[in-house]
Amino acid sequence: MNVDSAVTLADLERLARRRLPRPVFDLVEGAAGDEVTAQRNLAAYRGLTLRPRSLAEVGTRSLATTVLGQDVSMPVMLAPTGAGRLLHRTAELAVAGAAADAGTVYMQSTVSAFGFEEVSAAARGTAWVQLYLPPTDADTRALVRRVADAGYRGLAVTVDTPVLGNRERDSRNGLLNLPMWHPRALAQGLSRPLWGLEFLRGNVSLGPAPQKGRRSSLADTRTTIANAHRAVTRHDLEVVRAAWDGPLLVKGIMRHDEVDDLVDLGVDGIVVSNHGGRQLDGVAGTIDVLPAVVAAAAGRAEVFVDGGIRRGTDVVKALALGARGVFVGRPYLYGLAAGGRHGVARALDILRAELDKAMALVGAPTVDDIDASLVEVRVPQPAG
Amino acid sequence: MNVDSAVTLADLERLARRRLPRPVFDLVEGAAGDEVTAQRNLAAYRGLTLRPRSLAEVGTRSLATTVLGQDVSMPVMLAPTGAGRLLHRTAELAVAGAAADAGTVYMQSTVSAFGFEEVSAAARGTAWVQLYLPPTDADTRALVRRVADAGYRGLAVTVDTPVLGNRERDSRNGLLNLPMWHPRALAQGLSRPLWGLEFLRGNVSLGPAPQKGRRSSLADTRTTIANAHRAVTRHDLEVVRAAWDGPLLVKGIMRHDEVDDLVDLGVDGIVVSNHGGRQLDGVAGTIDVLPAVVAAAAGRAEVFVDGGIRRGTDVVKALALGARGVFVGRPYLYGLAAGGRHGVARALDILRAELDKAMALVGAPTVDDIDASLVEVRVPQPAG
Amino acid sequence: MNVDSAVTLADLERLARRRLPRPVFDLVEGAAGDEVTAQRNLAAYRGLTLRPRSLAEVGTRSLATTVLGQDVSMPVMLAPTGAGRLLHRTAELAVAGAAADAGTVYMQSTVSAFGFEEVSAAARGTAWVQLYLPPTDADTRALVRRVADAGYRGLAVTVDTPVLGNRERDSRNGLLNLPMWHPRALAQGLSRPLWGLEFLRGNVSLGPAPQKGRRSSLADTRTTIANAHRAVTRHDLEVVRAAWDGPLLVKGIMRHDEVDDLVDLGVDGIVVSNHGGRQLDGVAGTIDVLPAVVAAAAGRAEVFVDGGIRRGTDVVKALALGARGVFVGRPYLYGLAAGGRHGVARALDILRAELDKAMALVGAPTVDDIDASLVEVRVPQPAG
Amino acid sequence: MNVDSAVTLADLERLARRRLPRPVFDLVEGAAGDEVTAQRNLAAYRGLTLRPRSLAEVGTRSLATTVLGQDVSMPVMLAPTGAGRLLHRTAELAVAGAAADAGTVYMQSTVSAFGFEEVSAAARGTAWVQLYLPPTDADTRALVRRVADAGYRGLAVTVDTPVLGNRERDSRNGLLNLPMWHPRALAQGLSRPLWGLEFLRGNVSLGPAPQKGRRSSLADTRTTIANAHRAVTRHDLEVVRAAWDGPLLVKGIMRHDEVDDLVDLGVDGIVVSNHGGRQLDGVAGTIDVLPAVVAAAAGRAEVFVDGGIRRGTDVVKALALGARGVFVGRPYLYGLAAGGRHGVARALDILRAELDKAMALVGAPTVDDIDASLVEVRVPQPAG
Repeated sequence: MNVDSAVTLADLERLARRRLPRPVFDLVEGAAGDEVTAQRNLAAYRGLTLRPRSLAEVGTRSLATTVLGQDVSMPVMLAPTGAGRLLHRTAELAVAGAAADAGTVYMQSTVSAFGFEEVSAAARGTAWVQLYLPPTDADTRALVRRVADAGYRGLAVTVDTPVLGNRERDSRNGLLNLPMWHPRALAQGLSRPLWGLEFLRGNVSLGPAPQKGRRSSLADTRTTIANAHRAVTRHDLEVVRAAWDGPLLVKGIMRHDEVDDLVDLGVDGIVVSNHGGRQLDGVAGTIDVLPAVVAAAAGRAEVFVDGGIRRGTDVVKALALGARGVFVGRPYLYGLAAGGRHGVARALDILRAELDKAMALVGAPTVDDIDASLVEVRVPQPAG
Repeated sequence: MNVDSAVTLADLERLARRRLPRPVFDLVEGAAGDEVTAQRNLAAYRGLTLRPRSLAEVGTRSLATTVLGQDVSMPVMLAPTGAGRLLHRTAELAVAGAAADAGTVYMQSTVSAFGFEEVSAAARGTAWVQLYLPPTDADTRALVRRVADAGYRGLAVTVDTPVLGNRERDSRNGLLNLPMWHPRALAQGLSRPLWGLEFLRGNVSLGPAPQKGRRSSLADTRTTIANAHRAVTRHDLEVVRAAWDGPLLVKGIMRHDEVDDLVDLGVDGIVVSNHGGRQLDGVAGTIDVLPAVVAAAAGRAEVFVDGGIRRGTDVVKALALGARGVFVGRPYLYGLAAGGRHGVARALDILRAELDKAMALVGAPTVDDIDASLVEVRVPQPAG
Repeated sequence: MNVDSAVTLADLERLARRRLPRPVFDLVEGAAGDEVTAQRNLAAYRGLTLRPRSLAEVGTRSLATTVLGQDVSMPVMLAPTGAGRLLHRTAELAVAGAAADAGTVYMQSTVSAFGFEEVSAAARGTAWVQLYLPPTDADTRALVRRVADAGYRGLAVTVDTPVLGNRERDSRNGLLNLPMWHPRALAQGLSRPLWGLEFLRGNVSLGPAPQKGRRSSLADTRTTIANAHRAVTRHDLEVVRAAWDGPLLVKGIMRHDEVDDLVDLGVDGIVVSNHGGRQLDGVAGTIDVLPAVVAAAAGRAEVFVDGGIRRGTDVVKALALGARGVFVGRPYLYGLAAGGRHGVARALDILRAELDKAMALVGAPTVDDIDASLVEVRVPQPAG
Repeated sequence: MNVDSAVTLADLERLARRRLPRPVFDLVEGAAGDEVTAQRNLAAYRGLTLRPRSLAEVGTRSLATTVLGQDVSMPVMLAPTGAGRLLHRTAELAVAGAAADAGTVYMQSTVSAFGFEEVSAAARGTAWVQLYLPPTDADTRALVRRVADAGYRGLAVTVDTPVLGNRERDSRNGLLNLPMWHPRALAQGLSRPLWGLEFLRGNVSLGPAPQKGRRSSLADTRTTIANAHRAVTRHDLEVVRAAWDGPLLVKGIMRHDEVDDLVDLGVDGIVVSNHGGRQLDGVAGTIDVLPAVVAAAAGRAEVFVDGGIRRGTDVVKALALGARGVFVGRPYLYGLAAGGRHGVARALDILRAELDKAMALVGAPTVDDIDASLVEVRVPQPAG
């Protein structure tokens, strides 16, 4: 099997598992604590049943829609992730390019091997950006100005990372703390020589510290990650809102009773997210809480969801429950690991084809036809 | 174990698995996507508990009933399936003959190795037919006239196939796309030499293209399957209804809120079906939604169900929940693969004996005695 | 491990499994169809949680109670079973003796290696009898007279056996149909030589046909089983009631809506039973339906339950839900197989010790203190 | 892996399993009967989902709180356990010292290798004591006086031990009944030589019977355990209440309908506990019943909970459902077995770090901020 013969996202996952040293695969696949929430994200979709509409005119379909006013070819977008550089030398550039080619949004993470400007250019002006806020208001304003100048069309503030989650696979693997020349790190690299060579090409350089438009070093990434984790408050959101004219999203909401506040703060979009189960273990699956958040938003903000989407039918379920669109993370990282930009494109192709088929089979020729009648919430499944 | 010593349908399945090359078995057994719905069809019956009535006069029982006015010896009928020719040379002829012998209805599929006329004759005028509609109204009318002339007594339009479901086992096996002389296909055939010889007898001929009453080629079958998948609309049903005087069924309904429309369109029978889980994965089990459909029909149409029936007790459950009769698909295909017409007969014998015993044990001497008090819907089970 | 070092009934089961040829063990352990009901009987107890009462005066406990006016040393009785002769030469005599020693009731089955009179004597006048009714009223009256004369103190009519359940393990093993000198039967016997010798001692004789007080042959047993299965009607119960002055029980009730009728017919005791899952697969666990039957009886009849009891805590649960007493079947058969009368006694000792401990720990010094507050019905578990 | 590189309590458990002879590990890990309740204690936490609050000011956190008026550095305390001496020579002294170092409460068990006075001193006056009551009121009063003199600040009476639970692993292992020089015991010791040496250092002495401040012998422990099990009544509690001026707790409550009585008896604290599943199998998980007990207490008594806590998030869940604090048992015993006092400290460090992280991630900077909105009770999971 290779990227082109992969039939499902699970196939791409298998390819990624084969290609990556175990600690790197774990970095992508792993989650916090006992990984109950990560599993629940997946399982929750199985607890939802579809109610296909018959006799619908589905001979031709359109997957196009808009998200916060921006046209996309389908309601599937790419979530911010920070591990790209460990999967493929081209990292965020590959992802941004593939997303632009596919006509959808890539939300770039603050943790990135390449500079904002370079990635935004690769996305040809379609990307959004996700910010971990720096310590001071002044720095925050400067950062917002920088991403505005770089051409991002949407800005999301992540609010579920006051501290880093308990990623126990990473603690055990010791991945981010080992220097590259540590025997264990070397052994890992040699266990997957193709990956090892690629990694060396991407991460060993003799030049000076990274600048705008240059690739950051692994050490920079570690610093960024360390800084990323601080509590975001109402004040922070006010600062960002004042500094940013475009669509503003908050990412990491799991409670419907917080929606009024967010709307009052001028938030345009809410991403229901538990960080892929990577921050707080024991949280519900995102799709479990989506309906209440949608009800609370009552059209005043667009609601998005990430976590657990692996099938076109999952997208239909999320939209039927009120999401304006969905974000996928691990799925495109599997593609990135398996085949760089081409692999990311393959992941998007698979999802698009599955979504198209699912829409035909549920009797929804357009995204607007995906209504609440198409899904039934059954008894919630246990998490473990 | 052989066909005659098979005690249950599961035994016949085991025999079929042993006899068929894996890709052919997968074609029968497989379903769409993660096969959650296919499993749910089966599991849903386990979530229903029987409430046997004691002190009933069950010393003698009768399984006979009527379906859309037609006498049958038991409320178990044979669902349309398209893979018969890969299982046994005699394909639909065997099935039709066994059904007629058993005094029940075989609903023949449009996808068939043998012509309508020949199969109808083999069924001695008791068969129903399932139609995938051709592209134009005129063709539809012609097709309806042809099946009327051929003597079918019931006609069902399948409405859950606007596109072909994601049958991922088939995608991976590459079954339908490999020419017969491809080394992988040859190897598969040689792995089950008895099957291989039988297949060659049935599918290799030197003659011209198939005609009425002649066997169609595999290539024809592929064409039929490709054409089969198009959206069926209200208009299409109106065309069929106008052209067909006999009982009209719609197959593939999973929503009770569509029943009024169907009754208005003049439909006589509704088959609650998710296509054996082969079209849209993530749909509920058919028995889960049957009661609401029956309630909506309120006697204006007869309601049938297929999917997941493997036991006589399953038939009792379905009838207790309001089905007029049930259709089985895979069970008789297992029989067909294991022993041709004799195997189909064995499958029906097993079901009949089990149904008879189940009726005795629940205290229902006749089909009419199977009332709603005999079953209790317990907490739905998770799908996965 | 041996009978004396067995700590739990599960230990006795393990001993029995080790001692018996597989087909004989299957005869005891097996059930109808997919054995869903047999498993449900067990699982249903796990869905019930105990609510121990604290600060109770449980320094001394008494397990004694009465069942239909008869004193018993504990509310655990022995259910009728027909396979004893295959497990141990002493069969029902051993069971009756152990029950009498333990001060509890053995309900003897019609299917028995020894005559009614002999077994009743072995039980020293404490036993009850379970009847499969013969074909005619006259025969029924004669049979009732015979068991009355034999000294039985209670009489139960089994109503869930209009036909024999689908015991598929037995069908596959072919146990009851093989003559003893069949090579397969011989091989089975030789696989467990201790059992084989014992079996020969008990079942091979050169004498004439069995008479009153003599052991019946295996062939007789087969005949009895075949005759056992017929529908029991209201008329039959009227005949028995008229002929029998003592306490009358009906065994095999699973519906609360049948209780009024039974009370009207003069029934004194109702045994909620699904025949250990051996008759109709797909029925609820007995403990699931017990509370509704108890409520319907409203004190007009005593309600008993069998099926799935393997622990002292199970007895507490059943009594807390309103059972007057419980019957166990397989548990004492494990003991019988493992060690004859001594093994049966061990099974009863284990249950008595566990029940005593459970009563202490739930805060119930006497059987009357086991009230509804001690158990909570949680969400029903899936059956499979 | 060693104590210092252990990342989770599960790691400490693995270390303990490796270090201890199997019967000793089983003594700690095992529970009553089928261990359904012990498993339920753990599983019940998985059925609770967290609802993290965003935009909270969690930059700095404080885990400090008070329990019955006593300051603790975190709401995690150490439950009484009796097996310490088999795990590490220093037993309760190590536990008391580590608890005092950590600024939390150790509730010492009556079953203890060291005398009350010595352990209380090791805890530097912060410990609580758990009493099994002696047979007479006079002895009870004397015992209370002794522990008061020894400086304990809280006193708990255990009410769920009228008899010893069915610890079947122990029955099978025969642990407590074998003399130390029995070949099987010797073999066990030799299978874990490090443990064996340590055990010999701690348990073999040539001196006289233990006195105040001296280590008791294994034989003493057996006697204490045997005496420990008797029913505690209202009268007993009245005696203790009259004799003890400090905070009085009752440990082992599982029913909310007993709270009024306990409050009337002058109880200050209630420990919801099922004895770690070691007494009565079939009881609910403690966290399942906590909310009702808290509601019944209505602030008149502080409510604590033990059983199943293995994660910082579990502590958050318990507090969100109304617990004032939690007790852990097995977790610190794993630490004790793995590394004595240092191992106990490690267990507490892990829990503290996890709790701190969990509080940050749920948006609760202080213990008082952990409110009911942070947790959602989902459908209860089956117990088995």
